[in-house]
Amino acid sequence: MGSAHSSCSLLTASSTQHFCFPQPPICVSKLRPANQNQIRSIKFTSHSFRCCSSPQNLSLRCNQVGEFETQVKYLKTMADIHGIDQELLNTIVYDALVWSSLHGLVVGDKSVKRSGIVPGVGLVHSPIALLPGSFPETHWKQACELVSIFNELVDRVSLDGKFLQESLSRTKKADDFTSRLLDIHSKMLQMDKKEEIRLGLHRSDYMLDEKTKLLLQVELNTISSSFAGLSQIVSKLHSDLLDQYGEVLGLDSRMIPENNSGNQSAEVLAKAWTEYNNPSAVIMIVVQAEERNMYDQHWLSVHLRKRHNVKTIRKTMAEIDREGELQSDGTLLVDGQAVAVVYFRAGYTPIDYPSETEWAARLLVEQSSAVKCPSISYHLAGTKKIQQELAKPNVLERFLDNKEDIAKIRKCFAGLWSLDDKDIVKKAIEAPDLFVMKPQREGGGNNIYGDDVRKTLVRLQKEGNVEDAAYILMQRIFPSVYPTIFVRDGICHKDHAISELGIFGAYLRNKDKVIVNDQCGYLMRTKVSSSNEGGVAAGFAVLDSIYLT
Amino acid sequence: MGSAHSSCSLLTASSTQHFCFPQPPICVSKLRPANQNQIRSIKFTSHSFRCCSSPQNLSLRCNQVGEFETQVKYLKTMADIHGIDQELLNTIVYDALVWSSLHGLVVGDKSVKRSGIVPGVGLVHSPIALLPGSFPETHWKQACELVSIFNELVDRVSLDGKFLQESLSRTKKADDFTSRLLDIHSKMLQMDKKEEIRLGLHRSDYMLDEKTKLLLQVELNTISSSFAGLSQIVSKLHSDLLDQYGEVLGLDSRMIPENNSGNQSAEVLAKAWTEYNNPSAVIMIVVQAEERNMYDQHWLSVHLRKRHNVKTIRKTMAEIDREGELQSDGTLLVDGQAVAVVYFRAGYTPIDYPSETEWAARLLVEQSSAVKCPSISYHLAGTKKIQQELAKPNVLERFLDNKEDIAKIRKCFAGLWSLDDKDIVKKAIEAPDLFVMKPQREGGGNNIYGDDVRKTLVRLQKEGNVEDAAYILMQRIFPSVYPTIFVRDGICHKDHAISELGIFGAYLRNKDKVIVNDQCGYLMRTKVSSSNEGGVAAGFAVLDSIYLT
Repeated sequence: MGSAHSSCSLLTASSTQHFCFPQPPICVSKLRPANQNQIRSIKFTSHSFRCCSSPQNLSLRCNQVGEFETQVKYLKTMADIHGIDQELLNTIVYDALVWSSLHGLVVGDKSVKRSGIVPGVGLVHSPIALLPGSFPETHWKQACELVSIFNELVDRVSLDGKFLQESLSRTKKADDFTSRLLDIHSKMLQMDKKEEIRLGLHRSDYMLDEKTKLLLQVELNTISSSFAGLSQIVSKLHSDLLDQYGEVLGLDSRMIPENNSGNQSAEVLAKAWTEYNNPSAVIMIVVQAEERNMYDQHWLSVHLRKRHNVKTIRKTMAEIDREGELQSDGTLLVDGQAVAVVYFRAGYTPIDYPSETEWAARLLVEQSSAVKCPSISYHLAGTKKIQQELAKPNVLERFLDNKEDIAKIRKCFAGLWSLDDKDIVKKAIEAPDLFVMKPQREGGGNNIYGDDVRKTLVRLQKEGNVEDAAYILMQRIFPSVYPTIFVRDGICHKDHAISELGIFGAYLRNKDKVIVNDQCGYLMRTKVSSSNEGGVAAGFAVLDSIYLT
Repeated sequence: MGSAHSSCSLLTASSTQHFCFPQPPICVSKLRPANQNQIRSIKFTSHSFRCCSSPQNLSLRCNQVGEFETQVKYLKTMADIHGIDQELLNTIVYDALVWSSLHGLVVGDKSVKRSGIVPGVGLVHSPIALLPGSFPETHWKQACELVSIFNELVDRVSLDGKFLQESLSRTKKADDFTSRLLDIHSKMLQMDKKEEIRLGLHRSDYMLDEKTKLLLQVELNTISSSFAGLSQIVSKLHSDLLDQYGEVLGLDSRMIPENNSGNQSAEVLAKAWTEYNNPSAVIMIVVQAEERNMYDQHWLSVHLRKRHNVKTIRKTMAEIDREGELQSDGTLLVDGQAVAVVYFRAGYTPIDYPSETEWAARLLVEQSSAVKCPSISYHLAGTKKIQQELAKPNVLERFLDNKEDIAKIRKCFAGLWSLDDKDIVKKAIEAPDLFVMKPQREGGGNNIYGDDVRKTLVRLQKEGNVEDAAYILMQRIFPSVYPTIFVRDGICHKDHAISELGIFGAYLRNKDKVIVNDQCGYLMRTKVSSSNEGGVAAGFAVLDSIYLT
């Protein structure tokens, strides 16, 4: 289950739609066993029922797609979540939908073409879990402890240009995207370009492995870590729902950890802006031309303006190329405005570079004195290949001094292997279900699972370029499966789920002075426990928060 | 221009749609002179221009539908609003759209079928004026002063059953809807039903007559006064925009009067709930089956729950009939829950009573001990016919003691006449442009203007039932026309506008004790200054707030 899904695929990729009105209830989602080891017997009793007998004038319907007889060990506190009284459930769903609409927990509706371009139109509530997912407090604390170590690690790795270039040298041959990033990186090395103010807004994603009870890192995002804006709001929604319904549900809102991911991220951007020390400069958010997750970003902009009177502008890579110029002192001007901080919410995937124009923009930014979030070095430090390199024996020791820190980090590493490890490739062909093949670059959604792992490896072997492939192999994580209630497109849906916890981390330094090295809230994403990435691909991943147990 | 538009028509009635993306910009709205006396020369230079050169990654387009050469006296402070620098304008529009999305300034999108039924889906920003409309402070104060007098007046009129029955006796014959209301009222009189706790959430609507400089009442809504929830948010939006852009625009956010219409309305509902004194009882909002303006209502419910832990339920008239019952002590039970307060956001128009079922529900509520907002007497006291009766000489004196109060009220009365006033009917046939024919009942949108006034009166005369017609005649008010910027469906649109100011008033008493008699915020609605109700019918009325001058 060790899927590293893209920050955006959660909200965009969907082939499954549930409409409850005005059509009769339909059940279109098919559930497959998430984990053969855990769910041996699943009886499908596909049915649906109306939820409109609520005290609200409500025509919501809950499509209960599957009823399970499983051997899964449900998490304790939420074990009975599917058994919530139907009328109460309807009321909570209705309230959650109203709350989301009134408090900006919204995204652009993919069925409305303008919704990714023009704000205020085609809004729909963010897909959510109705109630927070259980998460063990010990593992939560463990994840929080790791933040500052990873922040520091990324910074140190980023400074080792040779390590980055060498580690990625093979990937460079196989993956054009990484190759282009490395070209820019090389140029900066040649120029001896120094980033004195370095800013990272990372998100380290974890899953909790059911068998080993280990918190295992899925990936570390160093570019375009999304959902800091909305996940803060989801936590508030859950707190509010538990303030209201906690007593009857036997839940306590105080068990939801405080989550100020959006505000804290904005605070750190403001601090970076202050370090840049040009009061008339702006923060530039690099965006995709269409962005249905724009409100997640807008929450940060609003905070920057209201609390710090810092102006943000939004530019696509193409616009930066068109409107950008470099002054002799290194100042980046875009549309005539000096840019203090460049905050990438695009540029992490090849799709964002359809032409040379966009590569020119990336180079322009990198050459400038603007604070980059992230710099090309930070970006490369977050690639899967580097993650895999760091997992090799004695590599962490190159970058970190404190042995306890190294041990903590290593403990959360899942098995990570290069494709030039012949033994592992052989094992993966024999038992593909225990592995995931992951591409180097960010953006996710292209992971290879199950028998496709075998097929791909065999094909690559035949072609004679296994070692050069732009993939790494990763131990497949099998997280706990637990019942949850999804709310998406105004419809609630009971199902079994798996979750991925992302911890936001912020790092800001100016030369030798570390200004920020903190945790910055969290993101819980929950998806239907169907195999592989099906949950995400089916659009059934939702925003969630956590309930400590 | 003295149109009394329904609370809902603003958001629902629209035959005109402006889409700017992905279609090329189109201009479909036609402007006609709002007032022949004021706008003698209008040159149409129909064109459109893109607004996407903004610092935002913005594909908004502003359709400037008409460019005017007029003799209108523009209001001072906003006179140059159409001249705002285009790039600045784009930025403000973008920010306004983002702000609206994040702060619940939303309505259901009419193009999404479920948007009036299921919360959280098919959301679109509320149609708004980009900046607050100018309003003279003297007239603002005058309107505020009138609130408590009108509140008291409605209460006293409501107690005079004979006056209501007699005044409406002719309307009863001509208008079935009023007739049914009167039947319920009669039954209550026969039962000697007393409303000890009386609650009114009224909205008195005014226009400022350009020639006479008089603040004239358009109508007094005693049932289903809408937009208390959203107008509070619009004022906050405008304040926020002026905090941000006021300096460059030469405007000061402090000139926007504080507007807590939603919270204050909810506070008064909570007080009525307290007076009813049954801690386990709920507040029932009577709703239409489909309501795209539901978030306006939800803002009140959220406040009631958060601040007072008072539960609201939403029921249609049909549901009340189905699920409602009266206990022997007068307690209204709906779906088994005792109801403390019935807050009508439906039931003001014949459309809400498609069958006997709904009338049975209305009677059931009226017979109960629940606090009604409004009672049948309050409802009838707000009809146009009663408004017209009160405007007759010596009628106000029957209900109010204080001569100054009477003078204040009378000063805001426009000319109001019954159709049995032959001289006025003759005048209206001769000069129909100076009159509006208005139906008795609430719900608006059915006013008759211009030559249709003449035609209708002539027809009624021929049919021999002018006097029994369900209409009154009202002096047509010609408000000031001023330039404004409409934002609707993500598109900004420069045009000339007229406005109607509604002042919310709340009145709560328990027997002899007046608990609340206050102003309760305000609503400004602004629409394109095309003739008659065209602006509303074309969906071009928007929510606004005021800027004191």
